[in-house]
Amino acid sequence: MRIILIGYGVVGQSLTQIFTQRRAELIKNYGFHPRVVAIVDRRGAAVNPKGLNLEKTLSLKAERNTVAAHHERGHPGMSALNVIENVDAETIVEATPTNIKDGEPGLSHIKTALKTGKHVVTTNKGPLALALPVLTELANYNKAYLKFSGTVGGGTPVLDLAKRCLMGDRILSIRGILNGTTNYILTEMDGRHITFEEALNNAQKLGYAEANPSMDVDGLDAACKLVIMANWIMNKRVTLKDVSIQGIRNVTLQALKEAAKRDCTIKLIGSINEKLKVAPTEISKQDPLCVGGVLNAVTFVSEFAGEETIVGRGAGGMETASAILRDLLDIKQNLATRLMS
Amino acid sequence: MRIILIGYGVVGQSLTQIFTQRRAELIKNYGFHPRVVAIVDRRGAAVNPKGLNLEKTLSLKAERNTVAAHHERGHPGMSALNVIENVDAETIVEATPTNIKDGEPGLSHIKTALKTGKHVVTTNKGPLALALPVLTELANYNKAYLKFSGTVGGGTPVLDLAKRCLMGDRILSIRGILNGTTNYILTEMDGRHITFEEALNNAQKLGYAEANPSMDVDGLDAACKLVIMANWIMNKRVTLKDVSIQGIRNVTLQALKEAAKRDCTIKLIGSINEKLKVAPTEISKQDPLCVGGVLNAVTFVSEFAGEETIVGRGAGGMETASAILRDLLDIKQNLATRLMS
Repeated sequence: MRIILIGYGVVGQSLTQIFTQRRAELIKNYGFHPRVVAIVDRRGAAVNPKGLNLEKTLSLKAERNTVAAHHERGHPGMSALNVIENVDAETIVEATPTNIKDGEPGLSHIKTALKTGKHVVTTNKGPLALALPVLTELANYNKAYLKFSGTVGGGTPVLDLAKRCLMGDRILSIRGILNGTTNYILTEMDGRHITFEEALNNAQKLGYAEANPSMDVDGLDAACKLVIMANWIMNKRVTLKDVSIQGIRNVTLQALKEAAKRDCTIKLIGSINEKLKVAPTEISKQDPLCVGGVLNAVTFVSEFAGEETIVGRGAGGMETASAILRDLLDIKQNLATRLMS
Repeated sequence: MRIILIGYGVVGQSLTQIFTQRRAELIKNYGFHPRVVAIVDRRGAAVNPKGLNLEKTLSLKAERNTVAAHHERGHPGMSALNVIENVDAETIVEATPTNIKDGEPGLSHIKTALKTGKHVVTTNKGPLALALPVLTELANYNKAYLKFSGTVGGGTPVLDLAKRCLMGDRILSIRGILNGTTNYILTEMDGRHITFEEALNNAQKLGYAEANPSMDVDGLDAACKLVIMANWIMNKRVTLKDVSIQGIRNVTLQALKEAAKRDCTIKLIGSINEKLKVAPTEISKQDPLCVGGVLNAVTFVSEFAGEETIVGRGAGGMETASAILRDLLDIKQNLATRLMS
């Protein structure tokens, strides 16, 4: 499979590391032979229709901070759209940063890829949160796959668990801790009795929170994931504007102390019932959903199988890259089935 | 799909309830049209090559305690083996009780079905714990599917999560709380400071434990599930005799109190590393695996995606029947793919 990789940050680099480390096993176990024909980062592109040497692109990125510095294959200043339109490939992996204002540049990358008949695997929540119903139609119209396992739960297979493993059942509602940064802050506030500001400060020092922590602490990241789950798992045609969102800035130590008296704590819970909602919510410490630190957890309430909870780290370069790999293998297998029919 | 159902207890009855309640949806969403051509219980069988009326078999079971009382289709005294050998069907569902001494009668049912080219879906842990490597070979030789999602975790998709949702990754080790009865007893002992005998007594009153609780409290049920996971998920050719097994009879209140001082508790943990082991084990109360009551939980440690934990009820008629339905749908889809190739 020929792959164009857009975005060469931690996740993109992890993916190429897995490809180099596991090449023999991927061929043997899955008949999967990934050939990365182009990589695009902020400064340009490296292109080789026969497949780039990924050890080389990794070292270029580490030493020169761009793959465009490749002396034979580098194209400084070449845009992602130019590459998507002009380089032959079956699939693009879109791993640029999330932007929830207009979804760009990811949204244009995904649209262009789908319009030119390429399958898309993305870890970019912005375009999906803003336009998943439209993108799904575009993919179907162009008979292309659009996969995004890595957008919810990082490497934890939250979407696949619901869609594949509960086949034949009906998911009635979903609730979950969908953001590791806010979960770390609330866990620290509750366990160590420190204020929101102190806990946020610690999270920033540890690299769990960004300098501008709004996406996390104002509940926007969790809301994006909720939109993706509602569309994919429950067939609701919703976007970010359909979510009622409240972050954790106003959670007080006093409220946490009161909750603790009832053997409860306060978590930032995203829930899908009739409505989509993200809000600080009191839950029992005995609830399987009540996990600490940077962990994420999601509970599916299904008609027959009861309540199922999945817990795991919700982020991480290698973890998220493993989700991209699952999507690529899934596309490969679906294409094989298509060919047979 | 023509189905022979062997064993018409809580699980078997729940399955036929799902078939009657969800008939239209199963056809619409999955193109799945189950036709139950025979049901066998302890007293005999009911057979109808055109498909039994399942409302009728449910009421016969409730009122007369056997489907063999069917006035047109009933065959008092007819054996399961006779039905498996002589009634045309694509698949048998084997839902007789677990017997870990010799696996019978389930083992003979499964062998006979596979030898006559029928696919098998079973919830019976005995035959699998004693002979899974051999049964897998028999299934492969006869090009038949052998599925057993309901044997681990009840309706909680423990096996599928590992096998399907972590595709491309490598599971390095597994540990889990695999038995709800012992987890209930240990949770009560720890939370209410009552002895093993008192907690067991309560569990028996509530119907969580059998009159003879050995399968649960001596760790045998958990060991069976461990064998199934080791074979299916980690490709280890092992059987029950390869598991080191210790139950919970000797867990003391004193040991639980000591553990609590370290913010820990004692759970009956089954683990797969180089060796297979079931034993009371101290774990942190902050570990996602540390769930209370009758819940089960399993943690998979994978190379790239990190640690993933799935939590759910490990038993229940409807829950286990939903796992059988998943297996049947999976066989149906695999057969469709086979036909196309």
